[in-house]
Amino acid sequence: MTESKVHPLTGLSSAEIKRAAAILQNIYHKNDGVLEKLRFQHITLQEPPKELLMLYLDAECAGVEASERPFVPRLAEITYREPDGPTYMKTVVSLDTDTEVSTIRSQQGQHGGLDRAEVIETNIKILTDPDVRREIAKFNLPENVTVQCDTWPYGSDNSSEPDHPKLIQCILYARASHNHPESNQYSFPLPISPVYDPFQKKLVRIDPIATGGKEDGLAYRTVPADVALAHCTENEYFAELQKTPQRKDLKPLLIVQPEGVSFDVQDGSLVSWQKWSFRVGFNWREGMTVHDVRYDGRKVFYRLSLSEMTVPYSDPRSPLHRRQAFDLGDAGAGSCANQLALGCDCLGSIHYFDSWLSDDQGNPVHAKNVICLHEQDGGIGWKHTNPRTDVAAVTRKRVLILQSIITVGNYEYIFAWQFQQSGTVEFDTRATGILATSLIDAGKTSYWGNVVSPGVLATNHQHLFCLRIDPMIDGSNNSFIQEEAVSLPMDGDNPHGNAWKIRKTPLERSGFADAAPLQGRIFKIVNEKQLNPISGNPVGFKLVPQPSQLLLADPMSSVHKRARFAEHHLWVTKYRDGDLWAGGLWTNQSLNEIDGVADYAARNENVRNEDIVIWHTYGLTHHPRVEDYPVMPVEAISVSLHPADFFDKNPASDVPVSTQSANSSVLVPYNGTSSSDIF
Amino acid sequence: MTESKVHPLTGLSSAEIKRAAAILQNIYHKNDGVLEKLRFQHITLQEPPKELLMLYLDAECAGVEASERPFVPRLAEITYREPDGPTYMKTVVSLDTDTEVSTIRSQQGQHGGLDRAEVIETNIKILTDPDVRREIAKFNLPENVTVQCDTWPYGSDNSSEPDHPKLIQCILYARASHNHPESNQYSFPLPISPVYDPFQKKLVRIDPIATGGKEDGLAYRTVPADVALAHCTENEYFAELQKTPQRKDLKPLLIVQPEGVSFDVQDGSLVSWQKWSFRVGFNWREGMTVHDVRYDGRKVFYRLSLSEMTVPYSDPRSPLHRRQAFDLGDAGAGSCANQLALGCDCLGSIHYFDSWLSDDQGNPVHAKNVICLHEQDGGIGWKHTNPRTDVAAVTRKRVLILQSIITVGNYEYIFAWQFQQSGTVEFDTRATGILATSLIDAGKTSYWGNVVSPGVLATNHQHLFCLRIDPMIDGSNNSFIQEEAVSLPMDGDNPHGNAWKIRKTPLERSGFADAAPLQGRIFKIVNEKQLNPISGNPVGFKLVPQPSQLLLADPMSSVHKRARFAEHHLWVTKYRDGDLWAGGLWTNQSLNEIDGVADYAARNENVRNEDIVIWHTYGLTHHPRVEDYPVMPVEAISVSLHPADFFDKNPASDVPVSTQSANSSVLVPYNGTSSSDIF
Repeated sequence: MTESKVHPLTGLSSAEIKRAAAILQNIYHKNDGVLEKLRFQHITLQEPPKELLMLYLDAECAGVEASERPFVPRLAEITYREPDGPTYMKTVVSLDTDTEVSTIRSQQGQHGGLDRAEVIETNIKILTDPDVRREIAKFNLPENVTVQCDTWPYGSDNSSEPDHPKLIQCILYARASHNHPESNQYSFPLPISPVYDPFQKKLVRIDPIATGGKEDGLAYRTVPADVALAHCTENEYFAELQKTPQRKDLKPLLIVQPEGVSFDVQDGSLVSWQKWSFRVGFNWREGMTVHDVRYDGRKVFYRLSLSEMTVPYSDPRSPLHRRQAFDLGDAGAGSCANQLALGCDCLGSIHYFDSWLSDDQGNPVHAKNVICLHEQDGGIGWKHTNPRTDVAAVTRKRVLILQSIITVGNYEYIFAWQFQQSGTVEFDTRATGILATSLIDAGKTSYWGNVVSPGVLATNHQHLFCLRIDPMIDGSNNSFIQEEAVSLPMDGDNPHGNAWKIRKTPLERSGFADAAPLQGRIFKIVNEKQLNPISGNPVGFKLVPQPSQLLLADPMSSVHKRARFAEHHLWVTKYRDGDLWAGGLWTNQSLNEIDGVADYAARNENVRNEDIVIWHTYGLTHHPRVEDYPVMPVEAISVSLHPADFFDKNPASDVPVSTQSANSSVLVPYNGTSSSDIF
Repeated sequence: MTESKVHPLTGLSSAEIKRAAAILQNIYHKNDGVLEKLRFQHITLQEPPKELLMLYLDAECAGVEASERPFVPRLAEITYREPDGPTYMKTVVSLDTDTEVSTIRSQQGQHGGLDRAEVIETNIKILTDPDVRREIAKFNLPENVTVQCDTWPYGSDNSSEPDHPKLIQCILYARASHNHPESNQYSFPLPISPVYDPFQKKLVRIDPIATGGKEDGLAYRTVPADVALAHCTENEYFAELQKTPQRKDLKPLLIVQPEGVSFDVQDGSLVSWQKWSFRVGFNWREGMTVHDVRYDGRKVFYRLSLSEMTVPYSDPRSPLHRRQAFDLGDAGAGSCANQLALGCDCLGSIHYFDSWLSDDQGNPVHAKNVICLHEQDGGIGWKHTNPRTDVAAVTRKRVLILQSIITVGNYEYIFAWQFQQSGTVEFDTRATGILATSLIDAGKTSYWGNVVSPGVLATNHQHLFCLRIDPMIDGSNNSFIQEEAVSLPMDGDNPHGNAWKIRKTPLERSGFADAAPLQGRIFKIVNEKQLNPISGNPVGFKLVPQPSQLLLADPMSSVHKRARFAEHHLWVTKYRDGDLWAGGLWTNQSLNEIDGVADYAARNENVRNEDIVIWHTYGLTHHPRVEDYPVMPVEAISVSLHPADFFDKNPASDVPVSTQSANSSVLVPYNGTSSSDIF
């Protein structure tokens, strides 16, 4: 039995991971009689059913002792492969009863994502394969230069068979001639791509990659192999390898909290700060999650998470046309989470959260420093100067940042939840890292991307994220309302034509909506049963959607059909346990989005005054600039949730005003030599 | 004669202001023979013609000694009123020759804005007027409570006569019963509005203000005067007056630069930082301006400024239907600039710029600390973790902030130029302060705004800003290109439907364009004669426009016709000296936008490979939330200019990587009491 003291949202401990693996292995042996070991992918906490968990959280919030709170089952979710076949299983085992609770089997053509063990194995097999080595040798690379292999999900296209096997598309790059391990391989992209079968454990074939430009269409090799990379040059992001010296004129800037931090972390994952409280979660797929978000004890959000993302590329030349990553479903934001380092990833006074992942043997793997928590100054919070007295009242906006960074091959994503004293919650998505590149012949340019370094084509692509917002605005039953500002005719009620009205459209049935910033369209999540005592409006939170360009791929393309969540900016669904995956449970090589958010929405359920979930798709269409190479300056996109008639005044009114005695700023005097009159 | 050493972009000194006033007064006397003193509004530097200034700046950049640089005239621009009439004049005098250089006379119905002397005079006259006092007495306010007066531009409507006189619309508010000078008057809005004539120096009439709700239409008084404000309650932002105590759990957060700052200010206004250099300017109308922006010596922007803004309100009930401020033209962002205080408005090591304004007598007025300059940590600049070695390279993004804050009656605006190491320049606009309010009867609600405090209707409104960007991307001749990502048909060249193309549309003639984020539309300012050596594209900067809702007022309304700059997100014009005012030179009580950006654009000039100016209109449609009262949490909107194939790599590649030894972060250990397994 599990220790009674563990909070139901606390991630599995290392001991629980071991026990979950043993329970399943044991059941498998019993059912099967064979002693072959299971091939584990992931072992993680299966969050309890909402109905049970909510009772527990309410009791907790009411101050009921842990031992007196309602029973909540302790469950582990295990993704694994049967030893003898291509079927993936997602099984839930009870840590209370040591039994199997439920199992989902992957169907024909459905595959688990790429895990770490598979990536390592593929690298070894491909880079030692004689056929691959023979092809590499043709490129006349400097002697002893290491060729490296990026393992891409194979993706799919319109010719993919429904029973296609799991494959891995390998993209090869060479290091610079000095062969330093931190050399930026993306400057030397090889124009061949081995395809690996991780079940048969063998090379399937070697695809050529086209290197032509606008004039060459879809044609492949346009120059002899031995000179194909001759025009590529080293282009390094790693300081020691750069040819120009680092800047020397940047003075240190430190963030100091002499009295310590303003936040508190209890029970391993319960954060409280400036009237906010929430639980931090972490799992292999979504990475960081946020639960039971309350302000001054009032319910705001039940669960906040990034559900999925897809990164399709625009090069139509095979095999690049299949390049489309689902970084959560195919790789896992938790599995790819960076171990953050003090003084490098954050500045100031930082708290880190650790967690546990698992390996292919079902052993726990310590995921150290995968989430960090710190305060930040966010500029002025509010200000007013009384023009009659010249007395200014100004506060600074303190922000609490919960951050996680993931590396998925070449790219980095920085995800951060920002909590503000004014009741606003923001989700920041930042992209950095290195562009996915392919080889282009000297002097050519392409429709499909930009030449960012000699011989290096950085392909145009989109990043489309889907944020899952499970609200509980003063309770579980909420509604979703579209609001727009609408011009009014110039008539008797509007004689001078200055007036407009707010058009409010509540969503009645599960479905979708789209951003329309030019119509001033915003959305509100409200509790229609709770009216604001001042305004008389239902209490709510306002979602200002990002009006990003949606999926560009043809609606009949496999790229599009696999990522229907990116057809619309917003989806509203009625809550069901387990409806977590905007792009479906099995994204790797999917042909369609099966059981994704479009399917949840298609149930056509009542979503007015119901337990609803809001999904927001947003992203970036990225046409690489030369400045995005060799490493990309952070590109940021934020989604905001603002209280809207939730409170009876600005909840940050009581933030102490900003004073020099508290802030100890330093005057930088004018040190110039010109005359006394200031400029 | 002026001192030869002054840089041509250095603002007028106090001595120069005095001298400019004397020159004009002297000319006026000579012409007129009368000894009556001129009524000055503003005296400021008239920036030199670009043709001359550019030669000077090029010489300066080339290292030519100040005394050897080409001659540039030193000019002062004086806005004043003739003593005996309603005509405003904008005259330029030469400080080199003590002569008048040019004069613009306001035409029939054109008026200068409201200056400080006028505001003070109006307050005194209105609040001591017996008719006004008699009306105020009817409201049965607590004894000895002070009534205060906000002076609004009178605006215009479709019935305004072309020769309408300059008027001031006064909005009256009462303090709370304790009559503290910092009491928030906006909680006690009086339903009467005196109209004042600043030429006749007398009350014109007292307008009633409607207090009804949805059911009352345009009707006026709905309750007896003596109980009209009875339901209003105190709602304070000023700490000492708030009924609930301030938060006590916010620990100090300091920004410390132990080795000093990384920027340098020379010659009073020349800033250099991290390869950027620029001149800071300041004038009564635009406030902060930025000039001669270069990166590593390369020309980027000739001049950056906020040109105009308009704030129309949506209440159709007279006189509120005329409520539309042009905060630059009517009031002046420089005239309204806050004197910033160390430790209050900024955090860290701050340099302040002072400037000089002038009063109605033509005397210089010291404008202390009107702009501040400081460095800020902007989070991660770029990061990549090599998944093969787990070696992370991460830099922090240092940002240089040039900031000014203005108070225009109830509202505050925070404007900030942000310079980044990656070559990006951002303009941040933040709105805070107090909502404009009017009285609403107890228990009623309105189409035109939200009840944010008992009896307090905060009217819906828009803030529409127009940013003026005068580029010089590697030289003065630039082009403006619209770019979109366009889906391609699934066909032989795009067999699997994943591809899209970039559609580039250069603007040939001066005109406008609009944001279209769902089409991925962005704009590039490029130099078509300078190709990037890596990509072959013209060097440029990318403008990502804010896709804000544009002006909601009816196209035939006066509100709309006065602010044609807010009809489109983007305008492109051919440069002419003096084309600075998006909403026209005389905005106060204007009936139409005369000689504004729409007129500049209508010249239909060639704008390809020409000296062009880009104007970007963006803003907020603000439907007040209860949370926006009694003081509004900052609402922010940013416009970004990113280098796009301007450099041959990420210019921030050489920023030193982030290390704990440089950053001295502090580990906040887990201080909880739960078991050792981390959550």
